[in-house]
Amino acid sequence: MKFVIQRDYLVRSVQDVMKAISSRTTIPILTGIKITATEQGITLTGSDSDISIESFIPIEEEDKVIVEILEPGSIVLPARFFGEIVKKLPKETVEIEIQNQFLTIIRSGKAEFNLNGLDAEEYPRLPQIKEENVFKIPTDLLKTLIRQTVFAVSTSETRPILTGVNWKVENNELICIATDSHRLALRKAKIETESEASYNVVIPGKSLNELSKILDDTTELVDIVITENQILFKTKHLLFFSRLLEGNYPETSRLIPADSKTDVIVNAKEFFQAIDRASLLAREGRNNVVKLTTLQDGVIEISSNSPEIGKVIEEIQSESITGEELKISFSAKYMMEALKALEGTEIKISFTGAMRPFLIRPINDESMLQLILPVRTY
Amino acid sequence: MKFVIQRDYLVRSVQDVMKAISSRTTIPILTGIKITATEQGITLTGSDSDISIESFIPIEEEDKVIVEILEPGSIVLPARFFGEIVKKLPKETVEIEIQNQFLTIIRSGKAEFNLNGLDAEEYPRLPQIKEENVFKIPTDLLKTLIRQTVFAVSTSETRPILTGVNWKVENNELICIATDSHRLALRKAKIETESEASYNVVIPGKSLNELSKILDDTTELVDIVITENQILFKTKHLLFFSRLLEGNYPETSRLIPADSKTDVIVNAKEFFQAIDRASLLAREGRNNVVKLTTLQDGVIEISSNSPEIGKVIEEIQSESITGEELKISFSAKYMMEALKALEGTEIKISFTGAMRPFLIRPINDESMLQLILPVRTY
Repeated sequence: MKFVIQRDYLVRSVQDVMKAISSRTTIPILTGIKITATEQGITLTGSDSDISIESFIPIEEEDKVIVEILEPGSIVLPARFFGEIVKKLPKETVEIEIQNQFLTIIRSGKAEFNLNGLDAEEYPRLPQIKEENVFKIPTDLLKTLIRQTVFAVSTSETRPILTGVNWKVENNELICIATDSHRLALRKAKIETESEASYNVVIPGKSLNELSKILDDTTELVDIVITENQILFKTKHLLFFSRLLEGNYPETSRLIPADSKTDVIVNAKEFFQAIDRASLLAREGRNNVVKLTTLQDGVIEISSNSPEIGKVIEEIQSESITGEELKISFSAKYMMEALKALEGTEIKISFTGAMRPFLIRPINDESMLQLILPVRTY
Repeated sequence: MKFVIQRDYLVRSVQDVMKAISSRTTIPILTGIKITATEQGITLTGSDSDISIESFIPIEEEDKVIVEILEPGSIVLPARFFGEIVKKLPKETVEIEIQNQFLTIIRSGKAEFNLNGLDAEEYPRLPQIKEENVFKIPTDLLKTLIRQTVFAVSTSETRPILTGVNWKVENNELICIATDSHRLALRKAKIETESEASYNVVIPGKSLNELSKILDDTTELVDIVITENQILFKTKHLLFFSRLLEGNYPETSRLIPADSKTDVIVNAKEFFQAIDRASLLAREGRNNVVKLTTLQDGVIEISSNSPEIGKVIEEIQSESITGEELKISFSAKYMMEALKALEGTEIKISFTGAMRPFLIRPINDESMLQLILPVRTY
């Protein structure tokens, strides 16, 4: 294998595939990046066996030569060193050559690195996925879907299925749901597809977080293919594979109350900042709990109390309060994360009493909701 | 005590005095910020008993009212909470009032915090320093002096005196020296003074680091007062006290070789980058050691070898090599830190054989030098 490549393309691709590589893997070859040179270009692969990422660098793009292939071949190089080396090389171009056995020379200007590689034949094969029943989502929308749901997954392994995000595809609609059993995030979006296939799968939260980091903020479409135990996200030069979680995701639709007893419409930013201040003291107490009380004339009071340190009380003028009076306590952390996930300047909070889950939604937008279980304090 | 204050002035002052406050102190009252309101303004104090910082906010500045004093007094408030609260308050002004005993109300807009304070009478007194024999240094120069020396102090407590920077004042000149016994940093500067007093003290490295973070990059003069066991840095609205380290600092002048056998003049940036690359692999081996070899025609070779991973070899064209041929090994970390500390695009490295300390200096600048002990590898 021997090729000369534009360094910035290599750096970018290495950074992408590194997202899949874990230094704590028990499979030594997975600490490496697989590099394959063909007549078409260079393919880099990284994997931790849950996530696999393949990045392709074509020999030319828009009439600009990026790679010159002098001899096809492949090798696995230690990812951490290779990544740091290419970042720090002195010149715009890099030459990479397997010298004998797996010893690989990396040259740039007057700097020359010799790295001990591993046999690419030993590198695990990526999942083979037949590209049937593809559906498509714009990249920026996909990132938004992830951002608005993935934070609500469980971090505890006691119910592993809750560490993933439930994706349901039906009737040209994708529904993403995440819950850790104390709160729930839901987001719907239209998808582009030519098939009638429906799916109900659970994608590890970690995979979605890594995917989101790699994707640019463009409107280009991402192809998504779901198989029995894998999901593939495909962009122009990138393949992102994740395994799916096994097991049945709980049915969450019955958790979402259909009616409400108290509805509050409030400016999202003012409300967020008041919760944020109240949580300064609440954090010290148990559970980071703040209290919300409806007062007269559309005023809501946010308060929290930490006997050792002190207390905080604050009034916010809401747009409107309709229905019953209410005193309710909830986690400031969950509320702040829910508010961050929602878009829109005004939100509607729908309560069904102090002991029942409540809903937070942007007004006039049915595509997303956040649900939080209150905390019993009375 | 009761006053109303512009929030941004308060935030800035709190951030400054927080630099002295440690959450790990064994003296509970030192986890607090002391606030004193007088007719002249507000004084905030933070201390970990090694470092004490006092920040003053005058009632007005440049005809702008900053503080309105309604009732003088003083209180100690929990630093961490107070700091976070003032940062997140909703309005431009803040009202602070002691209600009864030490319970303190902080009001801004419709947000009201009650914080349990402590008796300001219990707060330790700051050192009393007579302002005799003041000398003066511009703020930006002081920050440079610190940056160019403090990184070289020892982090080990086996010789506590080496965790400080040695400051010698004599003949209107300040000499700052730091060493961890493997390398040494020295910087000289002219000072402004009206006294003939000379000093030889050792300032804890940690104090200088914190001082440097607080100081702005201005050319305004800092007043410096040295006493037997304290040093005071004084700017317009800030007092920074540090205790001095006890004991005698080793005499370092005899460590600095007066003559050399090989002199190399090289571009600092190119040299730094080559060392940085070589250290990528050296870091894995013992001690992060790289090797420098002089070749023909002014070429120097930088190399390092980590048998498991691979090796790197690189050539740099120097401006000139004069004197004997040389092979020498040294810590890449020490060399990179020394190069970062020095200013100037071209540096001169003066070697006295492979086993002797060597000097790194900017060409045509006698005010600073870095010294490194080589590593025995042959």
